[in-house]
Amino acid sequence: MSEPEPVESRPLEEQLIAALRLALVSGVGPRTRRALLEKFGSAEAVLEAAPSDLRSVQGVGPKLTERIVAARREVDAEAEIALCREHGVAILVDTDDRYPAVLGQIHDPPGVLFVRGELEPPDGMAIAIVGTRHPTQYGLRQAERLAGSLARAGLTVVSGLARGIDGAAHRGALAAGGRSIAVLASGVLNVYPPEHAELAAEIAARGALVSEAPPRFEPLAGSFPQRNRIISGLSMGVIVVEAGEASGALITARHAMEQGREVFAVPGRIDDRSSRGCHRLIRDGAKLVQSPEDVLEELGPLFRPTPREDGQVVHHPAELLLNELEQQVLSAIGGEATSIDAIVAATRLAVSQVLSTISVLEMRRVIRRLSGTTVARV
Amino acid sequence: MSEPEPVESRPLEEQLIAALRLALVSGVGPRTRRALLEKFGSAEAVLEAAPSDLRSVQGVGPKLTERIVAARREVDAEAEIALCREHGVAILVDTDDRYPAVLGQIHDPPGVLFVRGELEPPDGMAIAIVGTRHPTQYGLRQAERLAGSLARAGLTVVSGLARGIDGAAHRGALAAGGRSIAVLASGVLNVYPPEHAELAAEIAARGALVSEAPPRFEPLAGSFPQRNRIISGLSMGVIVVEAGEASGALITARHAMEQGREVFAVPGRIDDRSSRGCHRLIRDGAKLVQSPEDVLEELGPLFRPTPREDGQVVHHPAELLLNELEQQVLSAIGGEATSIDAIVAATRLAVSQVLSTISVLEMRRVIRRLSGTTVARV
Repeated sequence: MSEPEPVESRPLEEQLIAALRLALVSGVGPRTRRALLEKFGSAEAVLEAAPSDLRSVQGVGPKLTERIVAARREVDAEAEIALCREHGVAILVDTDDRYPAVLGQIHDPPGVLFVRGELEPPDGMAIAIVGTRHPTQYGLRQAERLAGSLARAGLTVVSGLARGIDGAAHRGALAAGGRSIAVLASGVLNVYPPEHAELAAEIAARGALVSEAPPRFEPLAGSFPQRNRIISGLSMGVIVVEAGEASGALITARHAMEQGREVFAVPGRIDDRSSRGCHRLIRDGAKLVQSPEDVLEELGPLFRPTPREDGQVVHHPAELLLNELEQQVLSAIGGEATSIDAIVAATRLAVSQVLSTISVLEMRRVIRRLSGTTVARV
Repeated sequence: MSEPEPVESRPLEEQLIAALRLALVSGVGPRTRRALLEKFGSAEAVLEAAPSDLRSVQGVGPKLTERIVAARREVDAEAEIALCREHGVAILVDTDDRYPAVLGQIHDPPGVLFVRGELEPPDGMAIAIVGTRHPTQYGLRQAERLAGSLARAGLTVVSGLARGIDGAAHRGALAAGGRSIAVLASGVLNVYPPEHAELAAEIAARGALVSEAPPRFEPLAGSFPQRNRIISGLSMGVIVVEAGEASGALITARHAMEQGREVFAVPGRIDDRSSRGCHRLIRDGAKLVQSPEDVLEELGPLFRPTPREDGQVVHHPAELLLNELEQQVLSAIGGEATSIDAIVAATRLAVSQVLSTISVLEMRRVIRRLSGTTVARV
């Protein structure tokens, strides 16, 4: 016999069941869900709403109204919860503390996130690497190389577990001993493509598989573009490595732009069709990536300070480019005005060395000068 | 016995001799020459100036003063003129009508241009294609392909006759039946590199070899960067096809920026060292070239309307992208306000066809709308 759950957690469980029920109604996409929640205030209220009120919501027709009303009794949220518990899949409602803060910033965050594996604090500093399912050897090599270097620097590599570039990005991050997150269009217990089952298991062990679809959900063609907003939403920026002119990676890049995230593209040869999408992106303003340093230099301050796996707290990705001396000086500088004298005292370095190091940190845009004698972290 | 020259041309001949004498003084580069001409007004006046006056000019030391003074009697300009006549080399002083107008616009145009072959009116619409002397097969292929397509569209292809990309650009233009100009650092009768002698002869037959150095001048390392300003100076824009991080092609690109000419770069693979210079240029604002159309669309209005070899007068390179119908409508539009009615009357096309074609021309930026019923060429 299992112990009864403490009373105060029950409302959360009810919230979870309602959110899950709503998430499981087929035809309620992120936009409709958002419109429903705006109108009724909570998932519970949506499920209790009168059909006439439901139909007054943009995008909700008679059939969808019927399905929402039926969900109150037909959708077996309890069974999904049991299934998740059985397979170690966490269910994160967007009010959950474990829900990724950076994803909560986008226009239409998923209401529920199913997670196989663990989302950890270092994943707050993530970069997406995506691309075509039909890459060249060059593209595969670059995806692995970039993912490896950025993972070694301390970034979590996010991608879509697809064949081609996505798979190479996940593998590059794991091979470098780093973390990786795969965002699926299918459920996290229904990995697609099947040949990536083993890769998926490795990702779950050194990161997470995440999806807004229920665990057994089949991959539907229409759910891939939706999924892409989560890839960019979890990341500070998106690197596109090879993409044809109609590649889904371009949709991810567009989501990234709309979400205010950086967009990067790796160029290739102009007679390789698989580089055309990247070249288009660069002409439209994406940053051309020649090296991993280009990416770290370009990424803005983090949404919130993030610990690396080694315990170091990072405020700005450019800090990952610093050498030991620079790290040492930076660690003596706070968010408020810090005097040069205080830095010299804290580090016991020569004044000239502190001054020249401060110039480097300023150039890297990890600190700013407040006056002739004081600086602060950006 | 040759006929005596008409009296009125003699001052021009004297000007030519003086300009040539000054050009032949070793150590008088474009900057010093410009400073001397600004101070004294003409090449003749420079050669007659007192040594103390010469030395007051920026960049003129005692040795150079001596050489300029000695040039009055020592430099055998008449012999150079005779040599040029013998080999069919034209000598264009910058006041000559045949001197390229677009080159006269730059900050430091050459005072004298030696021309083997012919500069013709269509050369007013020129594009430079330059790059590394150590290209990949990919680079060579793209240089030839771009040069061929742009030459077929009616552009003259300018380059530096160097090994590698330059040679491929010249060959591509000639193979397409187009025109090409090679700007040399050596004299036009002293072709470098020697294995390009045959290519040089073909260029002279379908374009021109040009140099600011006298015909027998040896190629000096220091004269290549100087030469590059003429490559960009003769062109509406410069396309860089493969360049290492220290390639001379980057100097040509910098000249182009300073001269207000467009800069284009062809991307390549990020693990090809020979594409690094191009990627740097793109990050610094150069336009990424995927196709010849990209170049024609980007080039601004011509410095002056230019006839193609087929006689058609072009005002804007984007016109070269137009189909027959678009050409027909454009030919009915003048530099002043032209009414839609007038265009319909002139072309005898249906109003709807004229209207939709006008939209295309507007999008191509070859015409502008002045009011709801009138348009004009840009």
